[in-house]
Amino acid sequence: MLAEIITIGREILTGRTLDTNSNWLAKELTDLGIKVKRIVVVDDVVEEISQEILNAIKYGVRLIITTGGLGPTFDDKTMEGVSLATGRKLVLNRTALKMVEEKYKKLYEEGAVDTPELTEERKKMAYLPDGAQPIPNPVGAAPGMMITVSGCTIVSLPGVPKEMKEMFTTYVKPAIQQLLEKVENRRIVIEKIIPSGLKDESLVASIVKKVREKYPEVYIKSLPERFGKEVNIQVRFTAEANSKEEAEALLESAIREFKKLAEAHKDLTNGKEYTN
Amino acid sequence: MLAEIITIGREILTGRTLDTNSNWLAKELTDLGIKVKRIVVVDDVVEEISQEILNAIKYGVRLIITTGGLGPTFDDKTMEGVSLATGRKLVLNRTALKMVEEKYKKLYEEGAVDTPELTEERKKMAYLPDGAQPIPNPVGAAPGMMITVSGCTIVSLPGVPKEMKEMFTTYVKPAIQQLLEKVENRRIVIEKIIPSGLKDESLVASIVKKVREKYPEVYIKSLPERFGKEVNIQVRFTAEANSKEEAEALLESAIREFKKLAEAHKDLTNGKEYTN
Repeated sequence: MLAEIITIGREILTGRTLDTNSNWLAKELTDLGIKVKRIVVVDDVVEEISQEILNAIKYGVRLIITTGGLGPTFDDKTMEGVSLATGRKLVLNRTALKMVEEKYKKLYEEGAVDTPELTEERKKMAYLPDGAQPIPNPVGAAPGMMITVSGCTIVSLPGVPKEMKEMFTTYVKPAIQQLLEKVENRRIVIEKIIPSGLKDESLVASIVKKVREKYPEVYIKSLPERFGKEVNIQVRFTAEANSKEEAEALLESAIREFKKLAEAHKDLTNGKEYTN
Repeated sequence: MLAEIITIGREILTGRTLDTNSNWLAKELTDLGIKVKRIVVVDDVVEEISQEILNAIKYGVRLIITTGGLGPTFDDKTMEGVSLATGRKLVLNRTALKMVEEKYKKLYEEGAVDTPELTEERKKMAYLPDGAQPIPNPVGAAPGMMITVSGCTIVSLPGVPKEMKEMFTTYVKPAIQQLLEKVENRRIVIEKIIPSGLKDESLVASIVKKVREKYPEVYIKSLPERFGKEVNIQVRFTAEANSKEEAEALLESAIREFKKLAEAHKDLTNGKEYTN
């Protein structure tokens, strides 16, 4: 299954805030066996959010996760962007409204806000695209949402990392696992990193090329590192298959082949190079 | 001037590597008065790199900076992606070849590689789109490149942060400054963050809305924070104008208006709320 992550917020585009959300989500989705196709950061502009959602759908993506832009302020535009992209009008969601109402009641009781009243700004957070399912926010005030339109599931989460992570883990991950069970031909992706025993990336590249010719299904990448006498370039092997067993067998074969060729190089250079 | 940053590399999409390059570049470009419109992370796939370059050009972007995908390995696809997007064939660039040659000669002398020979993999790094200008890499081996096609300048830098930063600062930044001098109607963007003196983001939102109505040219954003008694929500003001003086005047007027309205709220709540 292909997924995309859309980070929404000008603070990322000005470099004021480092986006760690997409990295965390990319790891989570990869661990679930999902392939993240793109990560896009866009401004708080309805048309631009919508455009990236439509691009993703055009590229065959089945799961889109957005972070940011769910708060009470005028420039929190995510719901409007999803609405424009999906053609689903924003409507006051009763369940979401109850979540917001209860949150501010609690915050008022704790003395964190001055009134429990549902002001216009607070109410704004309960407007979701028609047909969306609200996602509770146990940490902050703005609910998230999940909606499936034409086979693509869009999940919107807040930008505050603590809120986003808690909501993903508690509500979104189980929903994605259910989604995956329905998907036929689910692909399994596994990875392994080994030290090459070599110090020159261009030499590693020539060995990788040979292994790739024999095992085109295995993706192999040397991890960039500085030059130097002590360097031992790491190489990552990624195999994708229909079952875990098949993926593991592929991975091990490719690694064996790599080690054989790297060893051969060691023989040629009298052990000068192969230091593993 | 609108810019985009394209980060190339599957290691970002699997979450294995946190992309800090785009954050650093976003800050640098913003400081130069350039507006970063999108940041996109794509896979090491020629067509996908090309697609995002073409999207950026379609959206009116005049400067694209790519990072990653310049090395000697088979999956370093950036130059091919730029070539496909611009219609400029990859040709062996003599200046770039000399850079690579001298680099490996030096590495050989230092004992960091076993041969100074220009292998196929090393030579690969000197193939640039026809008409591109190579950018020296004082830290690593792969040269960068800069090319201007139909009014859009594309700059490609390596993904290793130390190489990328050094090359941007030494070669790319001065070139961008020259570009900016040629651009008429250059817009100046300035920012300021102040403590609101308030602790409820939905209340800050209602004040921000009023200030925005009076100063629509000023972009105002409250920075998300946790709820709590001790919270003092920060608010960022961003003004864009044709001169620094004009931008500063706008910014100060909007901040004055905000403080006035926040103070008024303080009066209403007997000083309970306004703690600045």
